[in-house]
Amino acid sequence: MDSTEVQSFNAEFSDDERDVLYRIMRTRRDIRQFCSTPLPPQVLRRILEMAHCAPSVGFMQPWNFLVITSLTIREQIKALFEERNAREAASIEDPARRALYNSLKLEGILESPLNIVVTCDRRRDAPFVLGRAPMPNADLFSTCLAIQNLWLAGRAEGVGVGWVSIIDKDAAEALLQLPPGVEIVAYLCVGYPTEFRPHPLLQEVGWKHRVQLEDLVYQDRWGEPYSF
Amino acid sequence: MDSTEVQSFNAEFSDDERDVLYRIMRTRRDIRQFCSTPLPPQVLRRILEMAHCAPSVGFMQPWNFLVITSLTIREQIKALFEERNAREAASIEDPARRALYNSLKLEGILESPLNIVVTCDRRRDAPFVLGRAPMPNADLFSTCLAIQNLWLAGRAEGVGVGWVSIIDKDAAEALLQLPPGVEIVAYLCVGYPTEFRPHPLLQEVGWKHRVQLEDLVYQDRWGEPYSF
Repeated sequence: MDSTEVQSFNAEFSDDERDVLYRIMRTRRDIRQFCSTPLPPQVLRRILEMAHCAPSVGFMQPWNFLVITSLTIREQIKALFEERNAREAASIEDPARRALYNSLKLEGILESPLNIVVTCDRRRDAPFVLGRAPMPNADLFSTCLAIQNLWLAGRAEGVGVGWVSIIDKDAAEALLQLPPGVEIVAYLCVGYPTEFRPHPLLQEVGWKHRVQLEDLVYQDRWGEPYSF
Repeated sequence: MDSTEVQSFNAEFSDDERDVLYRIMRTRRDIRQFCSTPLPPQVLRRILEMAHCAPSVGFMQPWNFLVITSLTIREQIKALFEERNAREAASIEDPARRALYNSLKLEGILESPLNIVVTCDRRRDAPFVLGRAPMPNADLFSTCLAIQNLWLAGRAEGVGVGWVSIIDKDAAEALLQLPPGVEIVAYLCVGYPTEFRPHPLLQEVGWKHRVQLEDLVYQDRWGEPYSF
């Protein structure tokens, strides 16, 4: 029995335990402001173990984790971010919205003590992965399930995670020397945050409001209202 | 302050609370054997609220949840599964492996008290979603983060979730009357399971072993060993 399994697998959870999970989920944030305090190795290990507990199509476990500590590599990634971010800002037509965009801090690549790149190896177990052929992106989706485990485990450890999507993916993959068939799914900044704020940043600054759950749930077919 | 937010956002978690999360993650399973007991409405609501707490690119919240109770629709989905599953089995060349595949129960579409379809609305907030242009699939990935929240919340409630990927996606989307631009990300069977087994099914039956975490972690570049 390896460390990702437990003996008390059939245990039920109490209401209090359930509420712990829900509190972790509700207070998880996308973090961009980090302290430089390093992560203890056992904390990093626990977070990665939890990511590795995620479900995957055909038990494919298509993920890898690149722990990036090299300042040189992070400076190169940061340059990719700056370049792409300038293009993103330029594409926003409304001046007030563009100014708001430019006021936002959208990454913590250099300040965080480490970056973690989560990749998907699309070649793994080729040619037959149980359940994947009808849904060719199921390997990418599985990798995302691992990322959410990592994010929640981080929150439980007091560790912040920020997903940086504003990077030229091909350039970053070349920089990290990924072989053909391996893709970046997430570029994450990881470390102790200056704070976990009460609301998502984009909600707080008025970029976008939170949608009401009731407006997102349908019954049986698209558009049929569901009554809770 | 809506129900998906909490006041004690800056709370830290104790070692015991962290271990609750890790126990939930370790004992989560892909469930295919269900009891017919219905889910209390408040349990379903809590699970969906937790899904809706997931992070999303540009706070896009691109997900919708279709709660499928109609037996007619589920029988049609089951027929899509049967058809596609037969093709999958036929594509396996090795006879022993094909026999093993055919022995597996891969869905619980009719036995589970409800199915939940999680979709991604790729048109939401068009044309500009913060952070999405450099990573066009980030909306699908965000939807997967919500699915993992749903899956873990289910586990904490004693509710099992099984992801059915072996379905013709286009046919299912037509059946559910999804508009153009809205995609199925996951077709889930949801209900109280007959049990949470100690290991993933595909590990238990010898389809595939669990990879060692050490073999999945690199330092700075692909292929560079990382020492924990």
